[in-house]
Amino acid sequence: MSDFHEILAQIVGSEHVLLGDAIADDYAHDEALSAPPQKPLAVVRPVTTEQVSRILREASSRKVPLTPRGSGTGLSGACIPPEGGIVLSLERMKRVLEIDLANHMAVVEAGVTLVELNEKLAEHGLVYPVYPGELSASLGGNVNTNAGGMRAVKYGVTRHHVVGLEAVLPTGEVVQTGGKLVKSSSGYDLTQLIVGSEGTLAVVTRVTLKLVPRLAHSATLLAPFKSLEQVTRAVPALVATGVAPVMVEYIDQMTMMVITAQNNVDLGIPDEIRAATTAYLLVLIEGRTAERVDEDMQLAGGILGEHEALDVFVLPASAATRLVEAREKSFWSAKRAQASDVIDVVVPRAALADYMARVQEIAGRHGTMIPGCGHAGDGNVHMAIFEHDPDKRHALMLELFEAGRALGGMISGEHGIGREKKAYFAELEDPVKIQLMKRIKQAFDPANVLNPGVLFE
Amino acid sequence: MSDFHEILAQIVGSEHVLLGDAIADDYAHDEALSAPPQKPLAVVRPVTTEQVSRILREASSRKVPLTPRGSGTGLSGACIPPEGGIVLSLERMKRVLEIDLANHMAVVEAGVTLVELNEKLAEHGLVYPVYPGELSASLGGNVNTNAGGMRAVKYGVTRHHVVGLEAVLPTGEVVQTGGKLVKSSSGYDLTQLIVGSEGTLAVVTRVTLKLVPRLAHSATLLAPFKSLEQVTRAVPALVATGVAPVMVEYIDQMTMMVITAQNNVDLGIPDEIRAATTAYLLVLIEGRTAERVDEDMQLAGGILGEHEALDVFVLPASAATRLVEAREKSFWSAKRAQASDVIDVVVPRAALADYMARVQEIAGRHGTMIPGCGHAGDGNVHMAIFEHDPDKRHALMLELFEAGRALGGMISGEHGIGREKKAYFAELEDPVKIQLMKRIKQAFDPANVLNPGVLFE
Repeated sequence: MSDFHEILAQIVGSEHVLLGDAIADDYAHDEALSAPPQKPLAVVRPVTTEQVSRILREASSRKVPLTPRGSGTGLSGACIPPEGGIVLSLERMKRVLEIDLANHMAVVEAGVTLVELNEKLAEHGLVYPVYPGELSASLGGNVNTNAGGMRAVKYGVTRHHVVGLEAVLPTGEVVQTGGKLVKSSSGYDLTQLIVGSEGTLAVVTRVTLKLVPRLAHSATLLAPFKSLEQVTRAVPALVATGVAPVMVEYIDQMTMMVITAQNNVDLGIPDEIRAATTAYLLVLIEGRTAERVDEDMQLAGGILGEHEALDVFVLPASAATRLVEAREKSFWSAKRAQASDVIDVVVPRAALADYMARVQEIAGRHGTMIPGCGHAGDGNVHMAIFEHDPDKRHALMLELFEAGRALGGMISGEHGIGREKKAYFAELEDPVKIQLMKRIKQAFDPANVLNPGVLFE
Repeated sequence: MSDFHEILAQIVGSEHVLLGDAIADDYAHDEALSAPPQKPLAVVRPVTTEQVSRILREASSRKVPLTPRGSGTGLSGACIPPEGGIVLSLERMKRVLEIDLANHMAVVEAGVTLVELNEKLAEHGLVYPVYPGELSASLGGNVNTNAGGMRAVKYGVTRHHVVGLEAVLPTGEVVQTGGKLVKSSSGYDLTQLIVGSEGTLAVVTRVTLKLVPRLAHSATLLAPFKSLEQVTRAVPALVATGVAPVMVEYIDQMTMMVITAQNNVDLGIPDEIRAATTAYLLVLIEGRTAERVDEDMQLAGGILGEHEALDVFVLPASAATRLVEAREKSFWSAKRAQASDVIDVVVPRAALADYMARVQEIAGRHGTMIPGCGHAGDGNVHMAIFEHDPDKRHALMLELFEAGRALGGMISGEHGIGREKKAYFAELEDPVKIQLMKRIKQAFDPANVLNPGVLFE
């Protein structure tokens, strides 16, 4: 291995090969709460695609495991290396290579963060609309987890905006997939296969992203409901109006209490309504003109009223911003409250109430509480787990995942499987599909050097 | 082989195994103009997924090539069998299994056609918005070619609406991919990998589709321009308004002349404007209310005027419908005019004018004319080729594809590679990617029985 460090140093310069104590603790983990950290043998920080290619070629020929890493903001442990592995950090690949105004696309290196990209876009009236809570996440990381977030109900998730990639195969070969194209039917869609593959198929070095016009006007509604069943019934009615809300979030009463208290948000909701509320629906509407937003807000408010909202509040802009920010940080609120895990089961939108009823039943049986919030428009439920005993936690989470799958859902809507959930994935997913995925992995990575131990054993 | 026919008859019943003269000519081709027809040895018509599974298992163990077929409306020869192959027709799998109003999704068998699906959806105020010209196409076929069409500029193409599949692997194993989920990050996206794979990876038996609300109001603008450069400059400006038009089509002067004459459409455009026009831009706007459509139309019309449209006509509803229908049938118009091929290169939207200038230069050099129309909002150019000598046609088309690729484009935006374009694909695509695709094919189809000879040799 010492030999390999020298090769890495020849490729990137010795100052960009970190060893021993020079390796900051951050490189041993992401933000997953229960995946054990693992310090890598080395961290290598290339700055060009050609360097990435040479590193992969050397790693493949020597069978040294490599784990690609963006900003390390993931929630599934997908950038934690195996024992004896090396972390390939994309943190120095931070150029916004192009903002193409005629095609409404951006080309960025993998290490560019969401906040950096959207700062550059603001002056052009454009936006990259995928909005996972953590804006310090890198685009390369977002591509690998297929990140989602609160605006997915209107704009879709990462995969719906990635139209092209530059990616380095584990063999060191560099491929350009897709392009500045909104459509193509010219062979298998390698772009979409790599999106969401959690760093196991290729190292993404560049991303071509579709952008959308920034709409100038918006308004936020907050509707408290007595039951989650009512929330769930209101959502399809709301979507069917054609209003196309940007966010349709539910926040349960306990989560609302915690995030508003921890972030000092006062929503001005009367006590008697708060007392009667089980869940809130937060609806963000945007539009080209203030008049349209007003109209759509009236329409949406009417629909929520008809579907038994206890009231419908139009939030002042500042309160709306603070509430959305608090909701974004709900992961940190859960962490501060000593949650032992956070999960994000996805079910068909209409199955949300059934699923949450099952969750409450499971929680009761396990003698725990499971507060949550989520993307009601997408059926994506974020839950905090408070169970510190690993075996009991495994049993509890297995039941939660099984209940989701029984309703036609999946283990994760946007966080990914990573290391943290691979045991559940192996237990619950169809073995035929897992075998097929492993053969696809083999087609990309015959030496099995790229992020081994993530997704599958 | 006679032995194999008997096995097929045991699986589907002898009346659904067609042999010899009982095989209609249609099974030997799709609508591709230059791919030579090939009569299959047999046609087998299963009606259940279990039958498809048994057929594939038997074919794999005996190494008999199978070619799946929907409605046979493809334009690349992807459902033409190899010599000695068997056609697996999905025509009997025609059930609309579910229209799910709460989730806004439909589950259909592969043989259901677009027109059949949209008839069922109309009463619910929903629509499957992918709109390739040929509405007798099957959903299974659309999935396999990743069909696009005129509404893609707003709604995207087939892959953006397919959220789940039931597919039979060549081994006979049946997998359920995705589900009624708008997002998932739980392993490789097998759904997206199968979409656009032209029947080479799996036989799609069921499709779960995302639907959208049918908006009640619409209006159509037609803007003649002096040059295609002007058209191309107008498009990003139009999109940047946030109006989100449903169609942004360009139609060149010659194509407009042919399709309006062949379909008896009178647009009432004054002769002096027609004489000055090189290309028309057709813009369809839809909205929730008539007022919004009016407003958006004013805004869009203004932008087109600012970008040097010779005039902007608001088409009466009947003329608009007839023009869109005529445009849909432009393939048939080209065929009637004795075109020897039609192709659909896709380039970045902003490169459309450059590309068309290159096309005119190439046409001139080859002493031919290349009329066209296309999805200007998507950079997808449909061109008719009039060159009946195969070698000369190959040289001409190769130049057209090369020119598209040089501008960051791909050979096909929505028709696929099939048999007709695989030689160009092999010649122009990165061999590293082709090798990777072949390894992926191998991961699905180790016996190489599923649609061999399509996409690659």
